[in-house]
Amino acid sequence: MEKLINYAKDNKENFLSDLVEILKIASVSNNPDFQKDMNECAKWIEKKFNEIGLNNIKIYETEGHPIVYGDWLKAGADKPTILIYGHYDVQPTDPIELWETPPFEPTIRNNKIYARGANDDKGQIMIHIKSIETYMKTVGKLPINIKFILEGEEEIGSKHLGKFIKEHYDLLKCDYIVISDTSMYDENMPSICYGLRGITYMQIDITGPVNDLHSGSYGGGVDNPVNVLATIISKLKNEKGKILIDGFYDDVIPISEKEHKEFNRLPFNEGKFKQELKISELYGEESYTMVERMTSRPTLDCNGIWGGYQGDGTKTIIPSKAGVKISMRLVPEQDPDNIAKLFTDYVKKISPNTVKVEVSALHGGKPYSASLDSPAIKAAIVSLKKAYGVEPVYTKEGGSIPIVNTFKEILGADTLLLGFALPNENAHGPNESFDLNNYYKGINTVLYFINELSK
Amino acid sequence: MEKLINYAKDNKENFLSDLVEILKIASVSNNPDFQKDMNECAKWIEKKFNEIGLNNIKIYETEGHPIVYGDWLKAGADKPTILIYGHYDVQPTDPIELWETPPFEPTIRNNKIYARGANDDKGQIMIHIKSIETYMKTVGKLPINIKFILEGEEEIGSKHLGKFIKEHYDLLKCDYIVISDTSMYDENMPSICYGLRGITYMQIDITGPVNDLHSGSYGGGVDNPVNVLATIISKLKNEKGKILIDGFYDDVIPISEKEHKEFNRLPFNEGKFKQELKISELYGEESYTMVERMTSRPTLDCNGIWGGYQGDGTKTIIPSKAGVKISMRLVPEQDPDNIAKLFTDYVKKISPNTVKVEVSALHGGKPYSASLDSPAIKAAIVSLKKAYGVEPVYTKEGGSIPIVNTFKEILGADTLLLGFALPNENAHGPNESFDLNNYYKGINTVLYFINELSK
Repeated sequence: MEKLINYAKDNKENFLSDLVEILKIASVSNNPDFQKDMNECAKWIEKKFNEIGLNNIKIYETEGHPIVYGDWLKAGADKPTILIYGHYDVQPTDPIELWETPPFEPTIRNNKIYARGANDDKGQIMIHIKSIETYMKTVGKLPINIKFILEGEEEIGSKHLGKFIKEHYDLLKCDYIVISDTSMYDENMPSICYGLRGITYMQIDITGPVNDLHSGSYGGGVDNPVNVLATIISKLKNEKGKILIDGFYDDVIPISEKEHKEFNRLPFNEGKFKQELKISELYGEESYTMVERMTSRPTLDCNGIWGGYQGDGTKTIIPSKAGVKISMRLVPEQDPDNIAKLFTDYVKKISPNTVKVEVSALHGGKPYSASLDSPAIKAAIVSLKKAYGVEPVYTKEGGSIPIVNTFKEILGADTLLLGFALPNENAHGPNESFDLNNYYKGINTVLYFINELSK
Repeated sequence: MEKLINYAKDNKENFLSDLVEILKIASVSNNPDFQKDMNECAKWIEKKFNEIGLNNIKIYETEGHPIVYGDWLKAGADKPTILIYGHYDVQPTDPIELWETPPFEPTIRNNKIYARGANDDKGQIMIHIKSIETYMKTVGKLPINIKFILEGEEEIGSKHLGKFIKEHYDLLKCDYIVISDTSMYDENMPSICYGLRGITYMQIDITGPVNDLHSGSYGGGVDNPVNVLATIISKLKNEKGKILIDGFYDDVIPISEKEHKEFNRLPFNEGKFKQELKISELYGEESYTMVERMTSRPTLDCNGIWGGYQGDGTKTIIPSKAGVKISMRLVPEQDPDNIAKLFTDYVKKISPNTVKVEVSALHGGKPYSASLDSPAIKAAIVSLKKAYGVEPVYTKEGGSIPIVNTFKEILGADTLLLGFALPNENAHGPNESFDLNNYYKGINTVLYFINELSK
C-alpha cells in the first residue's frame, strides 16, 4: 500500500493534467451538434484504458452514443469481480452567460476545478482510471478483477444501456457494481449512500364540457375541470405531507431506530437551507427530521398543472380541460406499478361523475436499498476512513438512479454508491466544479478499497 | 312600417356583407399585437355611422382603446332619447386549434355565421346600425332621438368607459339605454332580460422556493406551490357548489316565490343540454333549478390555472411558482369590492406559511336588476312579439355587463337588454357563431321598437 500511496502523491500533476484533458472535450449528449465531441471522448477513454493496461477494450456502438468497455480479469476466480460504471456525457451548458470561465476551458480557483462535467461525472470517472493506473504502474497488477463500463447517455435517460446490459450479460456479470456519481453529505464528511428513492410518475387529465364555456352563462350549472382537479389533488395528501391514497404506506419499511440515530448525526443547517431556497418555513411530516423527509419517506408532488386561460388579464371561462403531472417518490418496499394502480383506483374513487377523469402512468422506478453488511460496503467504510481520517456517514439519496435497479434486475448484483462530489458543486448548473482535495482523496480511497476487497 | 320591413327584406345581402366585413377585423382588445386592428375597427364603424346618416360622429381617444360616438337628435324634445351601447372588441381566440374555420374568416354553415365576435357583440351591434340605416334610407329620419356609443374595452373590463361617461354627461344623457349583448332563452323564444349577475375576478399567485427544485432531492421537505394552490382552491367551494368564503352569502337576496314560478315556466331540456356540452351529469346547488343556478345564484369558477412543467413526458420538479384566475358571479345585493375583500381575507386565512401567497383583484362589476314596468321594456315586449310572432319570456342572464350599473349610476337611466344571441353560440369559446335568422329578426325587432317608443 505504501508504494501505491506514494505513487499517487508523486503523480498529482499527471492526475490533474489528464482530468483537464477529458474536461476539454465538449461531450454534450443531448445535442447532435456535439456528436464529434462525443466520439472524441469515447476514443480518449479507449486510449486511456490502453495506457493503464486494461484488456478487451472496445467501443460498442449503440443506436445512440457509444459505450466504452475494458477489463482486467487476471486476479483469479477466487477474487471478487467489480464492475465500475460511469458516464462520459455531460449536461448542456446553458445559461452560458452565468459561467465565470468557459465550461470547456477547465480553470482552477481555490483548489477547485471549474468545468462542465467536473464532478458529474468525469472527475469521478478519472478517480477510478487513476487508481487502476497506480496499481498497474507500481505493482503491475490488480488484486481483484475489474470491469469498467462508461456510457454516453446518462444525462438523456440511459436509453440504450438496459438493452446493452441484457445482451452482454456474460461480459458484465460481477459481484458488485461501483458507481461514483453521487455527492458526499458535506465537506470532510465522506459518505456511504446506501439507499435511493424510487418513483411513480402519473398524469391526470380532466375533460368537462366539450368547449370552454362562458363562466357567466354556465357558471353554477356545469362543473369546472380546474375546480375538480384542485379538489382531487387536495385529497391526495394532507397539509402535513401525509399521503391519503388507500394502501399507499402498506409496503413502507419504517425507519429503524439505528437509521434514525445515524440520520440525527448528520448536520442540517435550517437557516442556511431556508436562505438558499428563499423559503420562510420548512415543510413535511411531523415526526420526521428534514433529512428523513427528503431521503427516506415517500412523497407526492405536483410537477406541473395546466388548464384554461394562462395569459395576462382576465378571461371568463369554464375551461373544457385541465391536467396535472404528479410524481411520488417511493421507499422500500413500495412497488412503482402497485403504487400506480393504487393511485389510479383512488383518483377514480374520489372523482365526481360530472367530468371525465383519465389517469395515466408515465414511468416508474423501484426504490433501492443496499445492505450495510455487504463486503463492498464494509470495504468502502474502511477505505474512506483511511483516506479521509474520519468516520464516514451513512446517507440516502432522495432522488432515483434508475440504472441501479437495472443492474440489480439483470445482473443480480448490488451497487456501491461511492460519491466524491459536494452538494454545492452545481452539477447540471453553471460553474460546475470539483474539489481537487476530493479528487486526490478519492483516488486514495479507491486504492484502499481495491486492497480491502481483495482480503 | 311596411316600407321599413320591406327594405329590410330586400337588403339581407347588404346586411350580411357588412356583418362579414366587421367580423374580418381582428379587434382583440387584451393583446397589444392587435392595436392596429382595434383602430381599424373603430374607423370602420366611423365610416358606417357616416353612411347611415348619423351626426356628431367622433372617435374619442381614451387611455386604452378608442370609443366611437354618433347621434341623430332631430326627432324633437318631446320624443324620447335612447342611447344604444355596444362593443367592437372581441375575446382572444385561443385555443385556436379547436376552431373549424379561422376566427377572422367569417364562414356560413347552416344559416349561422361563424367568427370571433359573431354574436358577442359585432352581430348585435350591426342589428342597430342596419335598423337605423333602414329608417334613414326609407323615410329619411327617425321618430325618436338616438345616441350610439361603441367601446373597445368591454372584454377587458371597460376600464376607461366609466371616466368617459362621467366626462361626457351631456353628450350621453338619455331616457333609456339599449344594449344588445345578451342571449335569447332559446331558439324562437325572444326574451326580455331583466337581471344580470355581477362579477369579482381575482388572481392568486403562489411562490415557493426561489427556483424549480429537484423533486427527488427536496421532495418531502419543501412545500409545493401547486399542491398548496390546489388545497386553497378546494376550500373555496364544496362539491355541491356552495361557496365557503366567510360572509359570501350575507348580502344575497333570496329568489322570490314569483320569480321561482316564472323560472319554472322556462323549458330546460336536460338531455339536450348534456348532449350539446358532452357532459354526463349536471352540477350545482341542490335546492335550485338549473335556470336558477346559472342566472340567479352566485358562483365561483377557476378560469385558468398554471404552474411547473406542462410539456410532454416527465420532468421531476417542485415548481417555484403556481397561479390561478378565479371569477365569482354575484347577485343582488352583493358588492364586488366587498366580495374581493372577503375572498382575499379568506385565502390569507387558509394559506400556509411555507409559501408566499399573493391575492389580486383584477376587475369587478355589480349585479343588475331592472323594473318590468318601464316604457322601454313595454315597447320591447310588443316589438319582439311582432317580429317573432310569439310572446317573449322573462329571463335573467348569468353573465355580467358591468357597464349597466355604470350607466345607472352616472346617467341615472335604466337599461333595456335586448339580446339576440343563442345560448349555444359559444361566445368566448372556439367556433363562436350567430344565427342569421336572429340577425334579420333582430333588425325587424328594432324597427318596431323605435316605432313603439315614439308613440
